[in-house]
Amino acid sequence: MKDIDISNELKILGLEAISNAGSGHSGSVMSAGDILFTLYTRHLISGLKDEPLRDRFVLSNGHACAGLYAILASLNFFSLDELKHFRSFGGLLTGHPEIDIPGIDSATGPLGQGVANAVGMAIAETIMNARFHLSHYTYCMVGDGCLEEGVGLEALSIAGLYKLNKFILLYDKNDVTLDGNLNKSSIDDMKLKFKSMGFNVLECDGHNKKKIDRAIDKAKSSKDKPTVIIFKTIIGKDTPLAGSNLSHGKVFKLDEIDSIKKKLNVEKPFLNLSVEAKEYMSLVRKFNDEKLSIRKKNFENFLKNNKNIEKNYKNFTKNALKIKNFKNLDKISTREANGIVLNEIAKNVENLLTLSADLSSSTKVKIENGGEYSATNRLGKNIAVGIREHAMGAIANGIALHGEFVPICSTFLTFSNYMMPAIRMASIMKLRVLFTFTHSSIFDTPDGVTHLPVEQLDQLRLIPNMIVARPADINECAVCYNWLLNEESKPMCLVLSRGNLPPLNINENMIDGAYLLKQGKDKITILSSGSEIQIALDVADALKGKYDVNIVSVISIEKFEQMEKSKRSKLLKGEIFVIESSPCVKYLKYTSENHIFNVRDFGVTGDETSLKNHFGFTSENISKKILKILK
Amino acid sequence: MKDIDISNELKILGLEAISNAGSGHSGSVMSAGDILFTLYTRHLISGLKDEPLRDRFVLSNGHACAGLYAILASLNFFSLDELKHFRSFGGLLTGHPEIDIPGIDSATGPLGQGVANAVGMAIAETIMNARFHLSHYTYCMVGDGCLEEGVGLEALSIAGLYKLNKFILLYDKNDVTLDGNLNKSSIDDMKLKFKSMGFNVLECDGHNKKKIDRAIDKAKSSKDKPTVIIFKTIIGKDTPLAGSNLSHGKVFKLDEIDSIKKKLNVEKPFLNLSVEAKEYMSLVRKFNDEKLSIRKKNFENFLKNNKNIEKNYKNFTKNALKIKNFKNLDKISTREANGIVLNEIAKNVENLLTLSADLSSSTKVKIENGGEYSATNRLGKNIAVGIREHAMGAIANGIALHGEFVPICSTFLTFSNYMMPAIRMASIMKLRVLFTFTHSSIFDTPDGVTHLPVEQLDQLRLIPNMIVARPADINECAVCYNWLLNEESKPMCLVLSRGNLPPLNINENMIDGAYLLKQGKDKITILSSGSEIQIALDVADALKGKYDVNIVSVISIEKFEQMEKSKRSKLLKGEIFVIESSPCVKYLKYTSENHIFNVRDFGVTGDETSLKNHFGFTSENISKKILKILK
Repeated sequence: MKDIDISNELKILGLEAISNAGSGHSGSVMSAGDILFTLYTRHLISGLKDEPLRDRFVLSNGHACAGLYAILASLNFFSLDELKHFRSFGGLLTGHPEIDIPGIDSATGPLGQGVANAVGMAIAETIMNARFHLSHYTYCMVGDGCLEEGVGLEALSIAGLYKLNKFILLYDKNDVTLDGNLNKSSIDDMKLKFKSMGFNVLECDGHNKKKIDRAIDKAKSSKDKPTVIIFKTIIGKDTPLAGSNLSHGKVFKLDEIDSIKKKLNVEKPFLNLSVEAKEYMSLVRKFNDEKLSIRKKNFENFLKNNKNIEKNYKNFTKNALKIKNFKNLDKISTREANGIVLNEIAKNVENLLTLSADLSSSTKVKIENGGEYSATNRLGKNIAVGIREHAMGAIANGIALHGEFVPICSTFLTFSNYMMPAIRMASIMKLRVLFTFTHSSIFDTPDGVTHLPVEQLDQLRLIPNMIVARPADINECAVCYNWLLNEESKPMCLVLSRGNLPPLNINENMIDGAYLLKQGKDKITILSSGSEIQIALDVADALKGKYDVNIVSVISIEKFEQMEKSKRSKLLKGEIFVIESSPCVKYLKYTSENHIFNVRDFGVTGDETSLKNHFGFTSENISKKILKILK
Repeated sequence: MKDIDISNELKILGLEAISNAGSGHSGSVMSAGDILFTLYTRHLISGLKDEPLRDRFVLSNGHACAGLYAILASLNFFSLDELKHFRSFGGLLTGHPEIDIPGIDSATGPLGQGVANAVGMAIAETIMNARFHLSHYTYCMVGDGCLEEGVGLEALSIAGLYKLNKFILLYDKNDVTLDGNLNKSSIDDMKLKFKSMGFNVLECDGHNKKKIDRAIDKAKSSKDKPTVIIFKTIIGKDTPLAGSNLSHGKVFKLDEIDSIKKKLNVEKPFLNLSVEAKEYMSLVRKFNDEKLSIRKKNFENFLKNNKNIEKNYKNFTKNALKIKNFKNLDKISTREANGIVLNEIAKNVENLLTLSADLSSSTKVKIENGGEYSATNRLGKNIAVGIREHAMGAIANGIALHGEFVPICSTFLTFSNYMMPAIRMASIMKLRVLFTFTHSSIFDTPDGVTHLPVEQLDQLRLIPNMIVARPADINECAVCYNWLLNEESKPMCLVLSRGNLPPLNINENMIDGAYLLKQGKDKITILSSGSEIQIALDVADALKGKYDVNIVSVISIEKFEQMEKSKRSKLLKGEIFVIESSPCVKYLKYTSENHIFNVRDFGVTGDETSLKNHFGFTSENISKKILKILK
């Protein structure tokens, strides 16, 4: 039996799954099918997620997943029966790839994210290779869309910068997007564009499997550059809509699929494969597993002969951490505090990496003795990504997906907007990624409105699965790392001040995420966080004599809400006030709007004192208003 | 007196303003100064914002503004004295450029936004030129950072696609970013990269004013391509930190500035200019105004000789609109409803433009008889931007900034995340831009978690100055356009369903933003919006016999909050419940958490019915819970 038939069978299987589901994306199943088939049968050494030596594959054009699912099913990553429940509630095979599916290395769908994830995986591989001789290829498929998205372009520049020669981009160039022919939205010379970004560029007929095979072989031999193979393909190939954008989201009817089958001489049961195809793909899986086990043996032999490296490898991902108390520190900003904590932790926790969008001098997120990662220093622990916040986030996700590292991104809070889609993907995949954001309030810089965060803190707090923390001093900062490193895998946003803040008394309840910072006798409680804690303390002082208030430092409102209800209730004594430089919408659960001293309007240029006066964010003004309410 | 001295005087003036402010960005003042000087003294025909024929200039690397402010002051756009209050509270000259400043065409600061704004302006110019012979150049300065940002790269591809030959990019290539030399974060061959995107590429010494002059001349003569001039410059030139990243955010002390002045033979008073420089720049302004007035005369003469065009021009931006009632429509989705409304309005309102990130077939945001904008059809009203949501938003901002058009962007709600920084800039600048987002709930598509919006609606609602509307039928949709077109300039997000919804009774109070959709006898009120209105109506049915509830359709919670308090109070009768597919955080002002039926967790793959059952978003479940609470 010839390969061609099996590839066609698998593509048809993809079409059938879409037809059966009643929705999905047929066009790219047909354009990408031969490339995916050749990759999976001849090159990719695939495996389950607990196998660090497997090659990685990311389908950045996630909508093409029906074709990939068909291949993965044929390779027994899951049963063929699962295809019957493609896109159904409760089924394994989701509308776009998700990481719970065996054989899927990254959740994709929002275009451009996947290619950046893959760049992150390839970076992680270079480090694991340099440290432990743990090596593999990282493949990524993209369509035209991923290469229009800025995040994809940002990531590719980084792949070129870091000379990720084992990163292989399979570009399914069908020259069609949803709304029409590609030339309606892009006339970029992609060959030239990839060259400008430091790529090897190969071109290939994407429907000729022998040529595909040879092109991937050539890509694998690259010594100093990432490679893109530009595969010229036909969207919806072999269907009545071949070459048309209408094939993109087309759901073919069964009789239409029957005609396609006839045309291609494909004989196989509906939503199933021929016996020959099954046997062939079983054999492919067997060879695959043999190749993987050879790779594993070689790796184990290497470790056996290098006992020191073996020991390091085995301890590498053990990032358990005991909180250390930091004492006798001066008034410092929490960005500086975070730098101290991070570096203290990095002494014992080996697998931290920082990524900076060109602001590490300001965010202070840098492992001081970690060295700078580069094409010639794969051991460097600080990765410069340039002014590319979006790719930074998505690359960090890819590094986390690789399995060994805890990546730590940094930029200003206001620029968290630039990386929101990547932050969301970290939350969807529950990745242990730390996003640090400095300049945490509108009072933190005279840079003016564009640099002053208002809505960002609350926007981040709205993302499911996300912990957002806004510590007020170094020890509050330290407990955040405890959550990050010792609790279940989850992303975290750490929001840090530029302005200096006095250290607080060490309190064993900090770890809860919210705790009684100041005990008062009256049933009046101020909730506050970060740089506003000092205002809250000043307000308490101003109220002295009349009222003796409680102050609760809410390091993380999500943590606060995860506390046992009884414990939480104890912190919510009497009349509740809130002071925080954010819209504070989540606090509306605990008190009424007029008890909340927040920031809802854009900031303006000016110094801290003028701005605080302007926005009424002074202890004088706030204590006066509280007195009025309490009267 | 030679030019060189005046350019140096102006750069020094910039350094002094920074020194006086105590913060700012000196490095790029010195790298970009000679380019800006040559542009403003020899090419740019500048003017105030009410002058449509002026050339446009966007400083995309907004942090370099001190140098630009110095030039604008010298040209009498504002008094030199303003430089004394640079970065001060209440001063005119903000930390980064803002549009209230005379001579500033776009607020910039977040990198990459400005270049996309400029592309939008250049697109607007091609349309105004084709329609009315209103023509000018659009210049944009970028640093290395703007060209690392994805949004900048997306926008440049669009400039190439649309052959914007009067778009001239002045690239201040100083090869240094905040954290170090550019080659730490980018080894892109920028010449090749620009070529791949369809640009004319010129290279030039950025400190040789004669050569700068000639290069800009050459750029202006381009017939069919946008032009980039890659100016090789030195960051912090002529300062002790020349060439070093440390000059980026350096604030030089007065004695350091004195040394620089001595070195450059600059003699001028502190925060002021020499008499000669003032005279020279006055002359420049005079010539500038003469050139502008010639351009105006030519334009007026053209209109005089083309009475039809003149009439069209004078009516072009009059987008006043009366709400029309749409009657007897079937059950349709609000995305379809919006398409109908938009096309109805477009019959009379001439200056609407749509931009689609390759989803117009799905979002239905398209002016049906408007034609497709292209390099050969500048009259087309539908602009394809490819899968580049971020640039779409920022280009729309640029089009709005140009002054004549109301741009309407479209994509899925979940992808609003991709364009958040641009949406924020629209709000900061109070631009009349409409952002339409379809697939408005987690029940709207079987595409799976990545395509299901959860937090986005509330994230958008947190942006200051923003109106977010989620209409439930075609007439609710129509009133949103009334707000957009007839009220003060402000951006709006219009969130639309994919699922079909029954039409509602026409109600004159829709225009308020929230109104009593169903009157009940009991003091129980359900607030709801968009696709959940139907659930609310079903809940009311289910409660019948026991309770007769009120239903308020909250088309826009921001509008609701702008209503007169007494009017609003009337809508908040008795016990308040909320039903909406979002976290509903803003509704916490009106009721307690357990009265809110919302969506806080990520969605999953599946059909609408299964998902509604899974998330308990059915009238059966919700009415049961309401009954329990009311007991």
